[in-house]
Amino acid sequence: MMNLIKQGERLDDLDRNGYKIIQNPDKFRFGMDAVVLAGFAKVQIDERVLDLGTGTGIIPILLRGRTGSGHYTGLEIQPEIVDMARRSVAFNHLEEDIDIVEGDIKEARSIFNGNKFNVVTSNPPYMEKEGGLINESLDIAAARHEILCTLEDVIREGAKVLEPLGRFYMVHRPYRLPEIISVFMRYGLEPKRMQLVHPFVDKEPNMVLLECIKGGRPRMKVEPPLIVHMHGGGYTIEMQRDYGF
Amino acid sequence: MMNLIKQGERLDDLDRNGYKIIQNPDKFRFGMDAVVLAGFAKVQIDERVLDLGTGTGIIPILLRGRTGSGHYTGLEIQPEIVDMARRSVAFNHLEEDIDIVEGDIKEARSIFNGNKFNVVTSNPPYMEKEGGLINESLDIAAARHEILCTLEDVIREGAKVLEPLGRFYMVHRPYRLPEIISVFMRYGLEPKRMQLVHPFVDKEPNMVLLECIKGGRPRMKVEPPLIVHMHGGGYTIEMQRDYGF
Repeated sequence: MMNLIKQGERLDDLDRNGYKIIQNPDKFRFGMDAVVLAGFAKVQIDERVLDLGTGTGIIPILLRGRTGSGHYTGLEIQPEIVDMARRSVAFNHLEEDIDIVEGDIKEARSIFNGNKFNVVTSNPPYMEKEGGLINESLDIAAARHEILCTLEDVIREGAKVLEPLGRFYMVHRPYRLPEIISVFMRYGLEPKRMQLVHPFVDKEPNMVLLECIKGGRPRMKVEPPLIVHMHGGGYTIEMQRDYGF
Repeated sequence: MMNLIKQGERLDDLDRNGYKIIQNPDKFRFGMDAVVLAGFAKVQIDERVLDLGTGTGIIPILLRGRTGSGHYTGLEIQPEIVDMARRSVAFNHLEEDIDIVEGDIKEARSIFNGNKFNVVTSNPPYMEKEGGLINESLDIAAARHEILCTLEDVIREGAKVLEPLGRFYMVHRPYRLPEIISVFMRYGLEPKRMQLVHPFVDKEPNMVLLECIKGGRPRMKVEPPLIVHMHGGGYTIEMQRDYGF
């Protein structure tokens, strides 16, 4: 087993079904974003799920672990990270449930030959190309900044590969919410459920979770806020109950 | 003084500068919506403020009371309610600070002869014409349902009478947020600040507050949630501190 892990990489426990993930601590590592998205998304037993920009495969692995449902495809453009994700899938014996495909989000429809999915998930880069310092490591930079794809690319391509009434789950930064909502609506995906994630109850939210339905009717449910930490330390009851912390 | 109050009406204390408001308990009475909008909106010393669909004049009176700033115009279409609002303004000796104008929101630009405002506020009807039971009393029905004006009317006309970089403050229902954001953006008003109002910390929000800036640049600040009630009874510290409860 241990030869699945290459030099510089390590194996991190996901506290879910005994699953682990291979990560390189010098490169991109998953954060709370992936955890809350995997807690927010809903997947039914036989649904086909596509994760756009899957990185190490963290979202398919967590979501499969939490729901026990669905067949997952993770699309990732960077060959080294595709390789790392495939090794995590193998390590967890999830080869039947999760495929990792190398390719560009902007070509998703042709990559999948017009096959459609019931669910799309994505934790896209949050920052515009111009915004903030850009890390010199491409995999960290591409995960944070819209270098290899933009918000609009992710939503447009997701819309193309979704079945009618298919669901798109996204985690992003609240400061871009107006743009996110307007781009989803432009591509026929109606925002139907939203949750803001606050580090503490009296702090501004630092993440927003959205469920959009292709061809859905207008009317959005806003969930109670998800509070991550308690004052005085530790995770809140919701995080412990719903997210395994 | 007491002849300012007509049969069927009563005088309610606003707990703010000794101000009172004339209301008819059988007709439309202000709610928490007006209170939180008046707490959320910002008005500088010499700014001109227009409240679209002012009803009893509650928002100009509360906002003038809280900020001590600005000159207010309340636009209201129903003559009887215009009369009631004017009597509340007189009762509070606010004739220098608040004008109540009778007219249709859809004709706002011509009513004000092209004069522009720094700030627009509105607590519009929340429900679409088809949604829910419609009260037989026109003033209650018009306050709740989009009978006399739609969301788009309010935003379009507000955009016309705002100065460049003028601010539009609105309270509405969260379930219509995607539509609200997309209509604001269509009329060149960029959502810049949002707060969700929850009756209790673990309940879904029942109001959303938005500040949009005419010609503003994209990037929205999402405030910590405003929680109205404490479990066990009473108002939260924020409501006591910021809203006078």
